[in-house]
Amino acid sequence: MTLRTAIVGLGKIARDQHVPSIAKVEGVDLVAIASRNASLDGLPSFSDVNELLAAVGDDVDAVSLCTPPQGRHAQAEAALRAGKHVMLEKPPGATVSEIAPLVSLAKEKGVTLFATWHSRYASAVEPARAFLADAGIRSVHVEWKEDVRKWHPNQDWIWQPGGLGVFDPGINALSIVTAILPRPIFLLRSDLFFPENRAAPIAADLEFTDALGTPVRAEFDWRETGGETWSIHVETDMGKLSLREGGKKLFIDDVLNVDEPDQEYVGLYRRFVELTKTGALDVDLSPLQHVADAFLLGRRRAVEAFIEE
Amino acid sequence: MTLRTAIVGLGKIARDQHVPSIAKVEGVDLVAIASRNASLDGLPSFSDVNELLAAVGDDVDAVSLCTPPQGRHAQAEAALRAGKHVMLEKPPGATVSEIAPLVSLAKEKGVTLFATWHSRYASAVEPARAFLADAGIRSVHVEWKEDVRKWHPNQDWIWQPGGLGVFDPGINALSIVTAILPRPIFLLRSDLFFPENRAAPIAADLEFTDALGTPVRAEFDWRETGGETWSIHVETDMGKLSLREGGKKLFIDDVLNVDEPDQEYVGLYRRFVELTKTGALDVDLSPLQHVADAFLLGRRRAVEAFIEE
Repeated sequence: MTLRTAIVGLGKIARDQHVPSIAKVEGVDLVAIASRNASLDGLPSFSDVNELLAAVGDDVDAVSLCTPPQGRHAQAEAALRAGKHVMLEKPPGATVSEIAPLVSLAKEKGVTLFATWHSRYASAVEPARAFLADAGIRSVHVEWKEDVRKWHPNQDWIWQPGGLGVFDPGINALSIVTAILPRPIFLLRSDLFFPENRAAPIAADLEFTDALGTPVRAEFDWRETGGETWSIHVETDMGKLSLREGGKKLFIDDVLNVDEPDQEYVGLYRRFVELTKTGALDVDLSPLQHVADAFLLGRRRAVEAFIEE
Repeated sequence: MTLRTAIVGLGKIARDQHVPSIAKVEGVDLVAIASRNASLDGLPSFSDVNELLAAVGDDVDAVSLCTPPQGRHAQAEAALRAGKHVMLEKPPGATVSEIAPLVSLAKEKGVTLFATWHSRYASAVEPARAFLADAGIRSVHVEWKEDVRKWHPNQDWIWQPGGLGVFDPGINALSIVTAILPRPIFLLRSDLFFPENRAAPIAADLEFTDALGTPVRAEFDWRETGGETWSIHVETDMGKLSLREGGKKLFIDDVLNVDEPDQEYVGLYRRFVELTKTGALDVDLSPLQHVADAFLLGRRRAVEAFIEE
């Protein structure tokens, strides 16, 4: 039984990651596309999810939503209501509260809802979690810095309310942190840096802790040029653990321990295929919850305007 | 067995509501105070919760936290760790995520954690819920408007990050809405009006919906003068329901149906006494979740500076 899957939203992330990863994973086929102004050679294309659902009937089992978070709720609801398994790109929604009705609907329909966090499938994440499970943790420092012009060219939605700004990459770091640390964290301080001409932050400086008082600092910045830093450093009583390159490389006391090629989206689709066999759900909202908390508790700092060109 | 209770944070809400309500409720006694710069005649007073806990030992069973939400987490944790039942004024924290570790700790200690929403104990709220359970709901309109100078004089914390601004009263409306509507709601749009000299909004205009597409509009405004409006109007196929005066009065098609004197905090303490008998928890975060979502999805609108005097 192959999972016949349609992609909704054929933008950068769908072309760079979803399409090639589906091709690599056994048990899942790409059979249709719904996108406002894009199509793929040889595949039936539709302008939106409703047109797709009306046309494909029982020939599609699952829908992978790669559209921006604003408005994705309605698409997910339509697909679930039609009895399709649904996979959500991160973040799973524009708000936390909108996910609960989708969870209820998926359960009612007996289908899978998978809120994905691709960075959790980076090769060194699980080894890092295993290491930290037995360690005494002294401090955590997250540095997630990249050039927005390079990584998010002309992505207007990302600057709109609900688009998350620098938290769009930053939530990847939070998805790893919440996966590898043995205790839940919560925010103590949040400084958000808003370009005076934009509705979303270009940088954030966050201070978390946990029930043991562990200091957890996270710095997100989109103003980095000349290379990116996607690192998480954890000082422990068993040495210093460093995840680098977004979770691909693990260092213990600066000695390389894990270094595997990128396979995050292959991991996501393997997981999706597995979940759909029993109609299971995998919905962890904690990364998005921390972002919502960062806005709730955030102190706004005005910084210079961001001009794309 | 009387519940010997200490109040932490002897500010406006503690004096106006908690102290007189405890006096009215059977099964609970006020036995100590912890407050930075206030005390109550005839009661042992301490400067903070840690000093209180160190001094009182087994002579206090419960702690009612009436301090501002910023920093309350550490107080709650200290009290729970000492094995005390804990009652939290609303909002239960400065973030949503900080509550989960408190829930775990309360369960570990076998004590009660009660995240209170006093407006849910207004007399007309339960009759409104019962009416709406059987009604077809067409639309909801929340108007929560008051004069911040009258209701929150010199409350500096309320304008700080985590102090919620106009959501401090607005969350009362949301606590009622989430109690009386039969389906969960989620945000579609959030406009937040920030005075140019303040870190919290003075007004908010929110558009929610639910799984049936019901329009739910909420308007919060602190710039109201000449009287306050704390109303929730629900158009249904069985007529128009209106909650007025913060939930004290219920009208069906503009005919007064329920009109009881204020007893919200008496209801809270009755509930607290009941919960502590078995160490049960009552923690519903949905009102704070909606506020976090409103900040996450919020579009900021700058409005004129707010000068207290």
